[in-house]
Amino acid sequence: MAQQGSTYLDSLLNLESLRKSLVRQEDSIIFSLIERARYPINSALYDDDDKINKDPPAELSASLFHFFIQESEALQAKAGRYTSPEENAFFPDNLPSPLLPPPDHTPVLHPPGACININEKILNLYLKTLLPLIVADGDDGNYAATAASDLNCLQALSRRIHFGKFVAEVKFRDAPEDYTLAIRAKDREALMKLLTFESVEEMIKKRVEKKAMIFGQDVDLKENDSNGDYKVDPSIVSKFYGEWVIPLTKSVQVEYLLRRLD
Amino acid sequence: MAQQGSTYLDSLLNLESLRKSLVRQEDSIIFSLIERARYPINSALYDDDDKINKDPPAELSASLFHFFIQESEALQAKAGRYTSPEENAFFPDNLPSPLLPPPDHTPVLHPPGACININEKILNLYLKTLLPLIVADGDDGNYAATAASDLNCLQALSRRIHFGKFVAEVKFRDAPEDYTLAIRAKDREALMKLLTFESVEEMIKKRVEKKAMIFGQDVDLKENDSNGDYKVDPSIVSKFYGEWVIPLTKSVQVEYLLRRLD
Repeated sequence: MAQQGSTYLDSLLNLESLRKSLVRQEDSIIFSLIERARYPINSALYDDDDKINKDPPAELSASLFHFFIQESEALQAKAGRYTSPEENAFFPDNLPSPLLPPPDHTPVLHPPGACININEKILNLYLKTLLPLIVADGDDGNYAATAASDLNCLQALSRRIHFGKFVAEVKFRDAPEDYTLAIRAKDREALMKLLTFESVEEMIKKRVEKKAMIFGQDVDLKENDSNGDYKVDPSIVSKFYGEWVIPLTKSVQVEYLLRRLD
Repeated sequence: MAQQGSTYLDSLLNLESLRKSLVRQEDSIIFSLIERARYPINSALYDDDDKINKDPPAELSASLFHFFIQESEALQAKAGRYTSPEENAFFPDNLPSPLLPPPDHTPVLHPPGACININEKILNLYLKTLLPLIVADGDDGNYAATAASDLNCLQALSRRIHFGKFVAEVKFRDAPEDYTLAIRAKDREALMKLLTFESVEEMIKKRVEKKAMIFGQDVDLKENDSNGDYKVDPSIVSKFYGEWVIPLTKSVQVEYLLRRLD
């Protein structure tokens, strides 16, 4: 088994590399949302009653979506996905062991905070808040492809939001004295204030809006491409970042810091 | 079980809808290649000897890549992916049945040609020709995420290339007399000539190059974004389309037409 390259692990403890990765992850998130928007809502995929099937097989005790995400995670666990400190499962209970020995490296994160996982919240937010805003009504029957697209969106959002752990670790290492008092006082508000830079957040919101315009336009060979039609509404992406992605990333940072002295 | 909407199925028998779908699929293919290029080659994923693991578990009799793609397809088969005439599996033998009853619709394609599947060729081409051109050397240990990206690329390419079946069906229905002689004579060359429009092919090649520039640039908030650095080399995308994607799509069309009168 190849060891995870030290370059890769070092990059998780360097603020400039983390920043670059977060910017790059915006592209992945937007690509994944654009791809999900190829399919209509396909509600039957998410139903956990028997609307799809009067006599469901035992594997479908919950929704087809639930089955698909859980089984995909089990498969990816076998392939070693969750040995990476960047990855957090949506259904982390009873995941199978990796088929290969896990990479042999010193933990990057402080162990008490490493296991923070707010995917339940992310899943709920994705299904209830984001998805209805970016897809059309209707049902085209392409449930498997739709669920696979959902998984891509969820994993991209989860990776981005849990990246807060690395950001918090690096910020703490760079200036422990800035955070120690607030951590000892369990002062979430003070920590949140230390982690908030409004001008940076505004810039991120503008940049993801611009990216959604660029990546979601219909490109043809004429000079001026955009007809103002985007595959996912750029203002929704920007709003979702401002109201959810950024606050949740900061909340992961706060929770991580609160455990940093344990 | 919702029936697959008639709108969706009608769109597979309408040349203008097919053309739009092919253009839209270019975006998906390019997104997927850009996403794969986030990871280095990660060769150990593809090794089918014991380089990764001296004592591999039974599930890894082939490579981890092979295991991952095969198991992913089995899961997607359960979710009904291969009940869609657009989808063709890379490892079609012994796929499990869908958990839900398959959609109830009249076949869109002429049955003898519906089962054409050149995924073995596509897989080989992807691994041997395309992948080494678009990813960096090295190993970052992220095998599961890499394999999941590979699957997205492969499925996007396979869907695009096998779309030739629908294109051929519609062209045949529109003007059976144009094709019948060549089909009866099993004249592949004549059929290929009937299906070749060089100016259209040139336009596609230019468009995918432009898309790779637009989607693969580093977007920031300055006026003029592109620093000439693209996440996947646009000329490689264009060349790959011209040398492989377009010819293979036409070859699917020819094979389909040859069976159209069976």
